[in-house]
Amino acid sequence: MNLLSGSIRRVAIVGGTHGNELTGIYTIENLNRCPHPIDGYSFECMTLLANPKAIAANRRYIDRDLNRCFGNADLSNLDLTNYEDILAKEIAAKLGPKDRPRADVIIDLHTSTSNMGLTILLSSKHPFNLRLAAYLSTLHPDVRVCCGIQCNQDAPMLRSLSPLGCTIEVGAIAQGILNADLFDKTQMLVRETLNYIDAENQSKPLPIPTGLTVYQTLSSVDYPRDSSGKIEAMIHPKLQFQDYQPLQPGDPMFWTFTGESILYQGEYTVFPIFINEAAYYEKGIAMSLTEKLVLQP
Amino acid sequence: MNLLSGSIRRVAIVGGTHGNELTGIYTIENLNRCPHPIDGYSFECMTLLANPKAIAANRRYIDRDLNRCFGNADLSNLDLTNYEDILAKEIAAKLGPKDRPRADVIIDLHTSTSNMGLTILLSSKHPFNLRLAAYLSTLHPDVRVCCGIQCNQDAPMLRSLSPLGCTIEVGAIAQGILNADLFDKTQMLVRETLNYIDAENQSKPLPIPTGLTVYQTLSSVDYPRDSSGKIEAMIHPKLQFQDYQPLQPGDPMFWTFTGESILYQGEYTVFPIFINEAAYYEKGIAMSLTEKLVLQP
Repeated sequence: MNLLSGSIRRVAIVGGTHGNELTGIYTIENLNRCPHPIDGYSFECMTLLANPKAIAANRRYIDRDLNRCFGNADLSNLDLTNYEDILAKEIAAKLGPKDRPRADVIIDLHTSTSNMGLTILLSSKHPFNLRLAAYLSTLHPDVRVCCGIQCNQDAPMLRSLSPLGCTIEVGAIAQGILNADLFDKTQMLVRETLNYIDAENQSKPLPIPTGLTVYQTLSSVDYPRDSSGKIEAMIHPKLQFQDYQPLQPGDPMFWTFTGESILYQGEYTVFPIFINEAAYYEKGIAMSLTEKLVLQP
Repeated sequence: MNLLSGSIRRVAIVGGTHGNELTGIYTIENLNRCPHPIDGYSFECMTLLANPKAIAANRRYIDRDLNRCFGNADLSNLDLTNYEDILAKEIAAKLGPKDRPRADVIIDLHTSTSNMGLTILLSSKHPFNLRLAAYLSTLHPDVRVCCGIQCNQDAPMLRSLSPLGCTIEVGAIAQGILNADLFDKTQMLVRETLNYIDAENQSKPLPIPTGLTVYQTLSSVDYPRDSSGKIEAMIHPKLQFQDYQPLQPGDPMFWTFTGESILYQGEYTVFPIFINEAAYYEKGIAMSLTEKLVLQP
């Protein structure tokens, strides 16, 4: 995808993909107020509350995690008929399809119980995304830029409907609450994202640094479990809330219920993220391990 | 109720009254391990996972908050037939009835998204409870002792099945996660509670301070809402996580989505608790206001 001046015609801002992550939901409602804070740009700006039933129930999802329903195989599988599978197809019809999306850029707003600060999870390593992330990373020291294992449109997340855009993942915050500080920072990131796109759209790009630190996910680590799948240890107190900090071979990783440490057995230093995310207990993820790269935006 | 030496025959430790508060659930499972950490006392120690369906679903409750189902009128109302109403009657049959409980002491383990530290919520102001709380308050600076508006057996909480005992409410912690530090502190409080009861039961009471600070709940405050009930402001960033700190007339209390402060309009200093508890959004409680008393245990 090559971008020409003025080529971003439509930006979608999405909240409530997970119904108990209130920050994104209230951000969307705030953007929908009169007077419209998102008028006056060189592109159309649309908002979406992605999972209305889950929002009403104050739950992450009703039948299945909506943010894992956007894989190509699932989107084209008409036999999948539960609530989120049908919803994903409706959203793909509005914002997609993946090969020619109606929304040129998708920004999906999330929160985490992990200490993710102000994380920008890139939809792909497209130069547009790297430039946008480089700009955002100048705004606040808590901004960090990540790529998932699948940092492209093959991923099953909502953001994968377009190659351009990102998930904004703020934390640490419990599910089902608002935190004024993180709410305000999310507003700032949305506003600055739109400002950046607008400036680039008008061939007046805002200044960005020459190097961009990106945390590239390598793998995920599950909790130690017994043969029945029951958790046998917690995140070690020394690792709790230490997202993005180096974890070195021999560092404590887990803490058993009887008070024993389990150490990191890897061979080199990694940077864990999504440490102790509530929604990932059921996915078998205690944390994701990343490596630190410097890319040229 | 007068207590004589050796008169505590049975102590019940309860977890999972709310199915997404993992600390209590895993504490109970830890107490049930072999070798039994709760053997060898001068009383029988029983454990209970109160809401098995909610625990399996990782949700606070299925149909209705179990910890509001223990009012006398509800317990005797056979027309209430949803899951938690029936469950409450079963639990009352095991631990109650209120006027002659099988469990002499009930300790109910909870967590909060509010910064509640290590809160002891008294089942009543019975001298036994004050002595126990006074002992626990010597163990860690985060221990604080509270009374609800109904600090007696008329309350609808599970703990009200006996006049003796308390709820242990630790936080801040998100729903659906374990935090090793708060888990270990919960273990410590349970162990020391049993130690205290055992010593008193054997007429060798452990030393306690002469004065006990108690935070007495006066009222609760809801979020500012519009005519449809939608929240119009968040907890003010200066008040977030400031549970138990003084709130003075004119201090900021809420923060609107458009960035305006709403100030505390009361006439005297109060001490807010349960600030921004996730489960209380639906109950219309943004925080509870308490006053600070000193009682003689």
